[in-house]
Amino acid sequence: MKDKCILIDCVSNDYIYFENIDKASQISTHKGNISIDDINNYPAGSVIHTHKGHPYRLTDVDLHDYIMFGLKRETQIVYPKDSFFISGYLGLKNGDKVFECGLGSGAMAMVMANSVAPDGKIFSYEKRERFIELAKDNLKFDNLINFVEFSNKDLEVDEIGEGDFDAAFVDSKEPWNILRKVSDSLKAGKKMCILVPTFNQVIEVLKELKRIHHFDIAVKEIFIRDFKTLPDRVRPEDRMVAHTGFIIFSRKGV
Amino acid sequence: MKDKCILIDCVSNDYIYFENIDKASQISTHKGNISIDDINNYPAGSVIHTHKGHPYRLTDVDLHDYIMFGLKRETQIVYPKDSFFISGYLGLKNGDKVFECGLGSGAMAMVMANSVAPDGKIFSYEKRERFIELAKDNLKFDNLINFVEFSNKDLEVDEIGEGDFDAAFVDSKEPWNILRKVSDSLKAGKKMCILVPTFNQVIEVLKELKRIHHFDIAVKEIFIRDFKTLPDRVRPEDRMVAHTGFIIFSRKGV
Amino acid sequence: MKDKCILIDCVSNDYIYFENIDKASQISTHKGNISIDDINNYPAGSVIHTHKGHPYRLTDVDLHDYIMFGLKRETQIVYPKDSFFISGYLGLKNGDKVFECGLGSGAMAMVMANSVAPDGKIFSYEKRERFIELAKDNLKFDNLINFVEFSNKDLEVDEIGEGDFDAAFVDSKEPWNILRKVSDSLKAGKKMCILVPTFNQVIEVLKELKRIHHFDIAVKEIFIRDFKTLPDRVRPEDRMVAHTGFIIFSRKGV
Amino acid sequence: MKDKCILIDCVSNDYIYFENIDKASQISTHKGNISIDDINNYPAGSVIHTHKGHPYRLTDVDLHDYIMFGLKRETQIVYPKDSFFISGYLGLKNGDKVFECGLGSGAMAMVMANSVAPDGKIFSYEKRERFIELAKDNLKFDNLINFVEFSNKDLEVDEIGEGDFDAAFVDSKEPWNILRKVSDSLKAGKKMCILVPTFNQVIEVLKELKRIHHFDIAVKEIFIRDFKTLPDRVRPEDRMVAHTGFIIFSRKGV
Repeated sequence: MKDKCILIDCVSNDYIYFENIDKASQISTHKGNISIDDINNYPAGSVIHTHKGHPYRLTDVDLHDYIMFGLKRETQIVYPKDSFFISGYLGLKNGDKVFECGLGSGAMAMVMANSVAPDGKIFSYEKRERFIELAKDNLKFDNLINFVEFSNKDLEVDEIGEGDFDAAFVDSKEPWNILRKVSDSLKAGKKMCILVPTFNQVIEVLKELKRIHHFDIAVKEIFIRDFKTLPDRVRPEDRMVAHTGFIIFSRKGV
Repeated sequence: MKDKCILIDCVSNDYIYFENIDKASQISTHKGNISIDDINNYPAGSVIHTHKGHPYRLTDVDLHDYIMFGLKRETQIVYPKDSFFISGYLGLKNGDKVFECGLGSGAMAMVMANSVAPDGKIFSYEKRERFIELAKDNLKFDNLINFVEFSNKDLEVDEIGEGDFDAAFVDSKEPWNILRKVSDSLKAGKKMCILVPTFNQVIEVLKELKRIHHFDIAVKEIFIRDFKTLPDRVRPEDRMVAHTGFIIFSRKGV
Repeated sequence: MKDKCILIDCVSNDYIYFENIDKASQISTHKGNISIDDINNYPAGSVIHTHKGHPYRLTDVDLHDYIMFGLKRETQIVYPKDSFFISGYLGLKNGDKVFECGLGSGAMAMVMANSVAPDGKIFSYEKRERFIELAKDNLKFDNLINFVEFSNKDLEVDEIGEGDFDAAFVDSKEPWNILRKVSDSLKAGKKMCILVPTFNQVIEVLKELKRIHHFDIAVKEIFIRDFKTLPDRVRPEDRMVAHTGFIIFSRKGV
Repeated sequence: MKDKCILIDCVSNDYIYFENIDKASQISTHKGNISIDDINNYPAGSVIHTHKGHPYRLTDVDLHDYIMFGLKRETQIVYPKDSFFISGYLGLKNGDKVFECGLGSGAMAMVMANSVAPDGKIFSYEKRERFIELAKDNLKFDNLINFVEFSNKDLEVDEIGEGDFDAAFVDSKEPWNILRKVSDSLKAGKKMCILVPTFNQVIEVLKELKRIHHFDIAVKEIFIRDFKTLPDRVRPEDRMVAHTGFIIFSRKGV
């Protein structure tokens, strides 16, 4: 029994995400209804028609799909264009123990948990309790919640209860106030990543990274450009995301 | 005993990659020698001085570092800016069974193996035997070779011996000739990624994807922009990589 | 007496363009009315309040402003991000005689006319008569119409009545059908520019440019990225224009 | 008699710029010599062979060509990707009177002079005398020097001797120190442009623009991407210019 799926409109190419469909008998679109039996009996990739005859492609939901189409969010999230690269640049692999400050809606924790599973763990700190509940709900996806420990703490006043982390990710408003604590919790030489949206924050973070003797400092921005895919008229899309954040990497010096 | 390390010049910020250092007694730079005892006794992140007094930061080598600084290559490789996103967009996770055509120097296989370890496996096809040997050497990194099966075959004439793949990655010169075979080896609804550098190839691939009834077709380009990190003069680097390839994703229709 | 102006909302920073205001007694905004006497008596750059007290900055209209905010359009236009560079790359200067095919709404003709005034002239061909009327209306701006000659002709069947052009600009759907004619009308060695939106068109144009022995062929794309300007939170805008067209330059070989 | 030309190598597509050729009898390339008679007798766009038989395309030199290939420079210059847009955004047209601070090698003055000729003038201030001489040499191109007035003054201590400018362009290291003076010299509501390379400078300029009551503030960055032009393998160039400067526009408030 599928509990979630995406239907892609065969005409408009719009995506519709459905969840908890194992408890329903049919799902409704603006262009008609589809029975859950059809959803369960047809393989992914099938064309299914609504009772009005409109065709949809039945599609499974992987982690990228979930973050783009299914994630419940109350915050700005770390988008796949950034999160997969961050996870890769941090060198995350099965078994790693990773610190996160600023769980938010959990999108970054999902990607990092997927990278360190099944033997590693993400230790995520978040001062706003309701975001922890929201992120836990998202992290049920593919049981990623099994690879995350949650702490409802504010690092501007609280301490980090763990240490010897293989990597750290910080997404908070004034990260310079907590970077020394985060650095102290890292293993020697390990990488830290900080995500901030403004020039002003980049400058403050760079100043603090010098103060705490981090090295191999890198600031990066990632852009993804999409294209229209009609074979006779291939061309870039008219508009694109121009900014999410500046990504700052460094290693802990000793 | 460390078998590889990176030294980052504290003045110029240049990287020097060393391997097989467990068999040496010292390593040599243009600015003097460093004893292997120092490399082994100091923690990562330490400043070590050459016998001439020049300072270097001692740094461990993670997968991103290895691909950027250590990889032996005889081909154009898939760079981290593309490979981590591709792995993420394909939804790779522990346990997945992934098809690859065009192993090349093994850079993409390394990233995908890291994503599906410890329970998954990459099945990689490469028609040029010497690239398999080269890639095997690279894949010794972090024992990633344990998660890759190699086939020295040419898909324009040979068949794919496996099936039921969770995802596929194709990096070959005329991919349209083999996409039907690759698609046949995928599970229903699963994602395929094709990487090509030219407009002309994008158009041919898109035509073939229509013919083999793939859907949810997306063409993307990824850019990473680096910045100079002096806190008083933060600014983008003067030059950047403008193109590696167009990344084409689709799902197998049924 | 001003005949046009822009009001910039001091709170939202929205632009409102007004024209033919010399015939009115007041102008109306969603936030109240402003008398034409105020518009005429206050210098540009002044803050003027509506009868409801809402503040606007009174602003004159230059060519860039007109194209962005005042142009009447029924077609895709050549935007300033492209048109000023094209005019510059073509080497346009006072006195030049320039050929244009595809007048459209006249945005490119305005920029080129501004570049060759007061002694030069743009000879613009357009097969759709109503666009000529539309463009003429736009070209009244700053009397630029004085520097444009209009021909209601279709170059796929008609001939070019002039010759010895210093430069040429082509913005049409299948430019490869007319490039030989355009090239014949150019002086030896002079530059031609073609604007097309798709990969497929770029390929066809490049093939034709080889056939007609053009050289120094260049294909370019221009991007402009805007920033939010609050001094304490400077950051790139979230979204940007990702594509208007590919700009193809060449010189006429002999 | 031509006094300058460009030869484009028909094989490598490299450009070679020559000047003062009216005083020579032949010009020399690595691949052989060409007589000045050939240069003068063949029209632009011709293929000319060296005495060793190597083919070159003979090409005239327009303003864009001169800035890219002929300009004598001792400074970072404003490149065409930025300068033509700046001139356009400032609304420059024949007859305008424009202020410039920071003449440098004269590249921006050339573009602005070309825009305001024949009836306008650029008033350019430069504190380093030798740059004025250098720029004057460059501005001999196409007699653009006729449209520029030079002042060897340092605006951090000296005053601006003129007023009622239609537009202003500032390219100096700490522009915030002089913006009030520049603003005072502008006509009401007119546009100013400031070019700076770093985040830190952008922030300081934005603060000062608020202090001097400028409005309609815009910060922009321009990118140009080049493509390889073989019709069968069209693709973006591998590398591109990623940064020259941030372009800050505003209008003078009253």
